Amino acid sequence: MIRSLAFTTQGRLHTKDIEMFLMPTLLKDTNLFLWVDLESPTREEAKSVLEDVFHFHPLSIEDCVMDSPSPKVEEYSPREEDQFTPYLFIVIHAVDYSRKDCVFATSELNFFLGKNFLVTYHNGPLRSVTQTEEQAIKGTMHIARAPDRVAHTLLDAIVENYKPALEQLSQEIAEIEQQALQNPGKQTLNKILEIKKEVQHLRRIIGPQREVLAKFARGEFKLVRAHLVPYYRDVYDTLFHISELAQGYADSLTGILQVYLNMSSNQTGEVVKFLTMVTIITTPLMMIGTWYGMNFHDMPELSWPHAYPIAVVVMITSTAATYWYFKKKKWF
Amino acid sequence: MIRSLAFTTQGRLHTKDIEMFLMPTLLKDTNLFLWVDLESPTREEAKSVLEDVFHFHPLSIEDCVMDSPSPKVEEYSPREEDQFTPYLFIVIHAVDYSRKDCVFATSELNFFLGKNFLVTYHNGPLRSVTQTEEQAIKGTMHIARAPDRVAHTLLDAIVENYKPALEQLSQEIAEIEQQALQNPGKQTLNKILEIKKEVQHLRRIIGPQREVLAKFARGEFKLVRAHLVPYYRDVYDTLFHISELAQGYADSLTGILQVYLNMSSNQTGEVVKFLTMVTIITTPLMMIGTWYGMNFHDMPELSWPHAYPIAVVVMITSTAATYWYFKKKKWF
Amino acid sequence: MIRSLAFTTQGRLHTKDIEMFLMPTLLKDTNLFLWVDLESPTREEAKSVLEDVFHFHPLSIEDCVMDSPSPKVEEYSPREEDQFTPYLFIVIHAVDYSRKDCVFATSELNFFLGKNFLVTYHNGPLRSVTQTEEQAIKGTMHIARAPDRVAHTLLDAIVENYKPALEQLSQEIAEIEQQALQNPGKQTLNKILEIKKEVQHLRRIIGPQREVLAKFARGEFKLVRAHLVPYYRDVYDTLFHISELAQGYADSLTGILQVYLNMSSNQTGEVVKFLTMVTIITTPLMMIGTWYGMNFHDMPELSWPHAYPIAVVVMITSTAATYWYFKKKKWF
Amino acid sequence: MIRSLAFTTQGRLHTKDIEMFLMPTLLKDTNLFLWVDLESPTREEAKSVLEDVFHFHPLSIEDCVMDSPSPKVEEYSPREEDQFTPYLFIVIHAVDYSRKDCVFATSELNFFLGKNFLVTYHNGPLRSVTQTEEQAIKGTMHIARAPDRVAHTLLDAIVENYKPALEQLSQEIAEIEQQALQNPGKQTLNKILEIKKEVQHLRRIIGPQREVLAKFARGEFKLVRAHLVPYYRDVYDTLFHISELAQGYADSLTGILQVYLNMSSNQTGEVVKFLTMVTIITTPLMMIGTWYGMNFHDMPELSWPHAYPIAVVVMITSTAATYWYFKKKKWF
Amino acid sequence: MIRSLAFTTQGRLHTKDIEMFLMPTLLKDTNLFLWVDLESPTREEAKSVLEDVFHFHPLSIEDCVMDSPSPKVEEYSPREEDQFTPYLFIVIHAVDYSRKDCVFATSELNFFLGKNFLVTYHNGPLRSVTQTEEQAIKGTMHIARAPDRVAHTLLDAIVENYKPALEQLSQEIAEIEQQALQNPGKQTLNKILEIKKEVQHLRRIIGPQREVLAKFARGEFKLVRAHLVPYYRDVYDTLFHISELAQGYADSLTGILQVYLNMSSNQTGEVVKFLTMVTIITTPLMMIGTWYGMNFHDMPELSWPHAYPIAVVVMITSTAATYWYFKKKKWF
Repeated sequence: MIRSLAFTTQGRLHTKDIEMFLMPTLLKDTNLFLWVDLESPTREEAKSVLEDVFHFHPLSIEDCVMDSPSPKVEEYSPREEDQFTPYLFIVIHAVDYSRKDCVFATSELNFFLGKNFLVTYHNGPLRSVTQTEEQAIKGTMHIARAPDRVAHTLLDAIVENYKPALEQLSQEIAEIEQQALQNPGKQTLNKILEIKKEVQHLRRIIGPQREVLAKFARGEFKLVRAHLVPYYRDVYDTLFHISELAQGYADSLTGILQVYLNMSSNQTGEVVKFLTMVTIITTPLMMIGTWYGMNFHDMPELSWPHAYPIAVVVMITSTAATYWYFKKKKWF
Repeated sequence: MIRSLAFTTQGRLHTKDIEMFLMPTLLKDTNLFLWVDLESPTREEAKSVLEDVFHFHPLSIEDCVMDSPSPKVEEYSPREEDQFTPYLFIVIHAVDYSRKDCVFATSELNFFLGKNFLVTYHNGPLRSVTQTEEQAIKGTMHIARAPDRVAHTLLDAIVENYKPALEQLSQEIAEIEQQALQNPGKQTLNKILEIKKEVQHLRRIIGPQREVLAKFARGEFKLVRAHLVPYYRDVYDTLFHISELAQGYADSLTGILQVYLNMSSNQTGEVVKFLTMVTIITTPLMMIGTWYGMNFHDMPELSWPHAYPIAVVVMITSTAATYWYFKKKKWF
Repeated sequence: MIRSLAFTTQGRLHTKDIEMFLMPTLLKDTNLFLWVDLESPTREEAKSVLEDVFHFHPLSIEDCVMDSPSPKVEEYSPREEDQFTPYLFIVIHAVDYSRKDCVFATSELNFFLGKNFLVTYHNGPLRSVTQTEEQAIKGTMHIARAPDRVAHTLLDAIVENYKPALEQLSQEIAEIEQQALQNPGKQTLNKILEIKKEVQHLRRIIGPQREVLAKFARGEFKLVRAHLVPYYRDVYDTLFHISELAQGYADSLTGILQVYLNMSSNQTGEVVKFLTMVTIITTPLMMIGTWYGMNFHDMPELSWPHAYPIAVVVMITSTAATYWYFKKKKWF
Repeated sequence: MIRSLAFTTQGRLHTKDIEMFLMPTLLKDTNLFLWVDLESPTREEAKSVLEDVFHFHPLSIEDCVMDSPSPKVEEYSPREEDQFTPYLFIVIHAVDYSRKDCVFATSELNFFLGKNFLVTYHNGPLRSVTQTEEQAIKGTMHIARAPDRVAHTLLDAIVENYKPALEQLSQEIAEIEQQALQNPGKQTLNKILEIKKEVQHLRRIIGPQREVLAKFARGEFKLVRAHLVPYYRDVYDTLFHISELAQGYADSLTGILQVYLNMSSNQTGEVVKFLTMVTIITTPLMMIGTWYGMNFHDMPELSWPHAYPIAVVVMITSTAATYWYFKKKKWF
Repeated sequence: MIRSLAFTTQGRLHTKDIEMFLMPTLLKDTNLFLWVDLESPTREEAKSVLEDVFHFHPLSIEDCVMDSPSPKVEEYSPREEDQFTPYLFIVIHAVDYSRKDCVFATSELNFFLGKNFLVTYHNGPLRSVTQTEEQAIKGTMHIARAPDRVAHTLLDAIVENYKPALEQLSQEIAEIEQQALQNPGKQTLNKILEIKKEVQHLRRIIGPQREVLAKFARGEFKLVRAHLVPYYRDVYDTLFHISELAQGYADSLTGILQVYLNMSSNQTGEVVKFLTMVTIITTPLMMIGTWYGMNFHDMPELSWPHAYPIAVVVMITSTAATYWYFKKKKWF
């Protein structure tokens, strides 16, 4: 699906749903800028826009069409024989967290950012693109005055959309902590390790995105005008904070794992305590019982008048004493 | 609440509580410098000061008004169409440690530092600001001769106020160490891990503050005059020392955790020892008792004259022997 | 075995299986470029090509002929007395994973990349070289227009061939995870540690390859023309992603190890639980049995009319009660 | 206490115990250089020397008088209105190890190093200063020819004095290793962790000193003449080696900790073994004894002629067999 | 012992065992270069060569004569008053591994490398020096054409001699792995930790050597001619590979430690299993035996005709059943 929008440099919407053959003409008009959004386009659509209208470098087209696992920003400057004007090719990933599978899914957003055009390419609808389009059309906050402004809004939206995913993760961690403390079962350890792996995955996702955004924040590219750099720095700061949060989650999970392992070894300790206690409490009875079960012919105690009641009293007393001893030692 | 102070370049107080409409006039007087402190201002107050009087860059105003989780320092240079003079925008965090929740709370202090003005912005009263204001009004130590001096005093006060928070933490660690050694209960591990997380949190707070202060200590900014750089370096040194302390706390806590885990596995070991000891001490009696409880018709020992007293003696002797054996092996 | 191919700068095959004595002549023709592939050559073959035809620096020839454990790229510029033209000497490693031994084997591929020649040297057939040769001869994708293009295709093929090896490793990890969770035996730990070592080995293989490719991706070499740099950057990106995968595997294995160790300590815990349970369930019977086995002359209960049935009932009831107690506590 | 010495540039002692009012005059004489040593001076002494004679920058005076936890080197260049000549302000720490408290104590030595003066400031006597003073007066090794030579000798002495402290630590580690292997008690773990913390403390002390000395070793300061840089590099090398040693100690302690924890879990293992052994060795007797204690009316074995001796033999044989079984399995 | 050799720039031996007083004359002959090897020289020998013939800087002489724990390379350029020509002072360490003590011993080799001289200094004979001398005298491979060539050969020999030491270590690790898996005794842990410490020691030895060689590989020194830099890079590559191997050993040892600790905790688990099994298998007999040992007057079973045989059958059956149960559960 191709959506195309042309804006004036005052940020107002000029045309919508432009015919393909008109695009080259509009691109020559210096008072306009063009935003073409390719959402899960067919092969022909992608080819006609990226190759025939914009004449992008074949390598960037290939990277755009194929799934590329690592984000990047690359500057393409035309050689003499090339027909394109200079542009930045950017791959950035949005994340989505599905609680059921406990997996961070990334969706790729590709940008071609030129002086007076912006081409975005993605498979499946992306919240951040839809939001930005709506804002651009409404003309709120002047975001549609230049491609680098729109690109900033898109990046900002993508980074902001990391937050709900983190929110979900944070809840999940809180729940697993509760579980580890209260009733750690066989599945708890697996769950902890699974989330831990996911947090590390998240950090590996964020790392390269940060590097890409850092290049913008340092103002490395001419196509992003100097007075917009602070805005990109802002996006970078947000992402930096998110990666700090992820680090915090990783710390928490290490702690939870420690708690779980301790709990599980404590349980064995408790069982051993219980065994010991029962064994020792029953010991006086067993000793007396076994002793006076002997068949020696001449055991004077056996025929003492109050021998048996005394034995009962001794047995009860000593059992009570051991019971009281453990009670005092706070074994239960 | 808006507090405003104008000082002469000799460091003496010129005016207090300046009317808003007078500020632009005072700003033009090169013999004066202006300090405006916004404490939890209303939206209107913030807007009128930051936008209408000082015409700051909208991005820095937004960062100032909103809570920003990471400290920063940014240099804003005016483009032609801008109405502001060059200034530094600084976000720095004061910390406060509440022992009850065992959490480091950070409060944000925003600075706008120009050649002849300083605007501070914070929500809720801040000890460091109040202190500095008092000192500036009294004129002690010439701190009020220029905005970069006042800014230094403020930063110094903030960093100094990290120390009591660390003091509290240090006490808490000492207490938990005591507890881990003497009576480690179920809550001890949680407490250790909680403090550990907090120390890591503290280190993540300090890290970026250090980076911000390092920029001042390296004399990166023209708005801070060269002969004041050593003073900023001093603040940086203090913060560096604090982060070393935090590292030391982290090391201590790792040690305490190790002690706790060892204590807890030792307890199980002690229980097993106890069980073993009781079982073995009672073994001689049980063996003799069980053996002579047999009903063989022809057990000569049963009818020996002193059989029973001998059995008693053997039983007592061997029990005493095992008891003495464990005593010698230092099992209790 | 020597295979030699000459291509025109239009990427078409000019000659095949060139006689050795013709090579110097072809090398002087600026419209051609020469690719000589040495597959497990004899000493004489290697000498005649590397020394007599191309006059390469003796150090690079030595490095080429001998197995060198670390990949590298070195630029050789001729001094006056040298007879060679500038060239790059590259050593890169292909990996192959054998599941039986659970070991990553590396095979070395040496390149000599000049302005109009490419010499490749390897022991044993290499899939990536064969593939590239076929493509070059067919003339698909213009890869045979210049040596730096062929070199790129070779590097790309090598890096792509890492993927099946990783695929194998990934399956192995999934299997061992299953095993650790379901029936962890004595061999499981060894297997986990073995794979873990292999992953670390893989990461140590990839690291230096990445450094070599990074130099190409940064466009450090004049012999690789500027407009081909993005293609090398692409190869670098793939390798970067592979090393991220390897990092992910390492994380997974750390988790699996933790699961295994926990499983194994849990088993002991279960055994202790079982012992405790059996001991305690049999305790009532043992106590009653031992007690009424005593031979006191005057034990009134012994002659009570329904003493024995009562004892049986008490014994059964208390055994059932302990059994129910453990059932309720979910001990089994 | 103020000690002052003036040397000629030939390294010979010129005057001793100079009156304060003469110092400014001597400072102007280019053939002399002045060394003033302040040992735990009173406030007035410090003020008169540092402020009135040398007119040092107030910030460096403050840093000097107060305890500063981190070493540093700062270059002070005079502005027009300042009365001092360029100088380096250096803070360096000597360490002392007290075995009783198991704590590294640091004592601070402050230097003011100018072209023709050296001011040292310290609280309490410092071995390194006393040694250097003696050597300078004796004129051995020409150390008193220039302030940068004296400063080198002082730094060298300080760094050399780290070695006995490390020696002590090394002994302590050897002792605790012995203890962990032979009779690990409850205090062993605490001791190990205490020393470990101290080693980490030592490394945190050495780190910043190394950074300070590295600046000298790189020849960053004009006040240290180029041909003396190798001497400072030598001091740096010594400190580098010391920090390598400290790293080695840290590794050892991690090993010792592992040994201790293993020993302590082995002890429990041994106890369990013991319990198991005793239980099983007594099992045959208990089984026979209990079995033939039954009161069935018709138990033919009971009246067999040699039943009892046979039971005795069976009991002894089977006990001996289990005993021999464990002996063979090397359980004790 | 002093050995001295003079070579022509064609690499042929000119003189051997040169008289000390002739050396200065030979040094002036630009067609010759001089190699003086000091093996465990007396104080006088060292002084006469290093000071009187070559006039080296006193600091480098001191570093040479004394044992210096860290390798280094330092460039000495003469000041006007100095009598030496520019030279490099190099300290490098050869390693030797003694299996008995399980310790890496380092022997120091000091170089003074000038334009037309090479002075080597070592205590005790060094294989690498002897080898190089023989090769130089034979004139093989032109190594004796210049001091920087000889220095390269020496460094190469030293680095190559690391390999047998690593070979030894590798065998030791294989043996300890075997031991940890098959019969882990009390000494196994100590051995593992000892080797681990040694590997870390080795890595701390290699680290600084690599830094020294990296300086040569980057071609930082004028005294090493540009066309020899690739040869030094080769030496560096070998050392790099060695440090990778050491890293691999460290990884293996961490794995072996994990195996050992697991084995040792498994043993306790096995013992507990055994105890549990024996206890439970004997339980049916003990229960029946104890029960029918009771003395109730009216226990009908006791006088049943086939009571005793039934008890025997029940006892045997239930014992066999529990035995079979454990057999099926694979407890032994």
